[in-house]
Amino acid sequence: MDTISRRLFVILITMAATLFSAQQANAQQDRRIIRLAKIQVDPAQLDSYNAALKEQMATAVSVEQGVLTYYAVAEKSNPSHITILEIYRDTVAYQSHIQTAHFKKYKAIVQNMVKALELVDVNLIGVAKKPDM
Amino acid sequence: MDTISRRLFVILITMAATLFSAQQANAQQDRRIIRLAKIQVDPAQLDSYNAALKEQMATAVSVEQGVLTYYAVAEKSNPSHITILEIYRDTVAYQSHIQTAHFKKYKAIVQNMVKALELVDVNLIGVAKKPDM
Repeated sequence: MDTISRRLFVILITMAATLFSAQQANAQQDRRIIRLAKIQVDPAQLDSYNAALKEQMATAVSVEQGVLTYYAVAEKSNPSHITILEIYRDTVAYQSHIQTAHFKKYKAIVQNMVKALELVDVNLIGVAKKPDM
Repeated sequence: MDTISRRLFVILITMAATLFSAQQANAQQDRRIIRLAKIQVDPAQLDSYNAALKEQMATAVSVEQGVLTYYAVAEKSNPSHITILEIYRDTVAYQSHIQTAHFKKYKAIVQNMVKALELVDVNLIGVAKKPDM
């Protein structure tokens, strides 16, 4: 190959590698399990519920590679109405999560505290956040 | 002061400083404006809406110090039903945000795309996430 051909070849390989890497990243994002869990808790047991929820979230993210993100929020006007944004790496990670001791412990503790539970599967449109958030 | 008194004094000052710093951090968290925006979009204009939303989120987080976090998700079974988790540093940051050129541009673009909008003020129960999330 002459010099120009060699250069073009290098550019082509670089572009192909970049495209492949971008596709891999997209595929990883596409496999993610994202959901909103909408939960109504017995107001009389709200503090106990929140404590169990926080322990479950912290443990799962800390010990499970495929549990990526939890944000749990409560309506100001009705603190027993809770929404949790959950992100898991993929279906395998989620199926593994619900078999863990800490998740089963959480479900056992809260079974008489939760009055209603709705799980809404969602797709991510986008995330924007400060680096330290 | 003798040596023991000096040591006790240093420990006391350190404890006071730690307590003060923890209280400041809590006060900062308490001032945060957190909300769920629940939006129904005209399905025929969904792609345009999502593009405008993503541009607004990226610009606001990039140029406004007090805009901390956006997560925008769409129901899998009904992609025109969108929920956005929004976190602002405080009321001042939020009031400043809605006066920015990029926010006003977003509102102008989407005014005929949004069929319903519900803003739900929430408190954070907890966050758990991987360091790179």
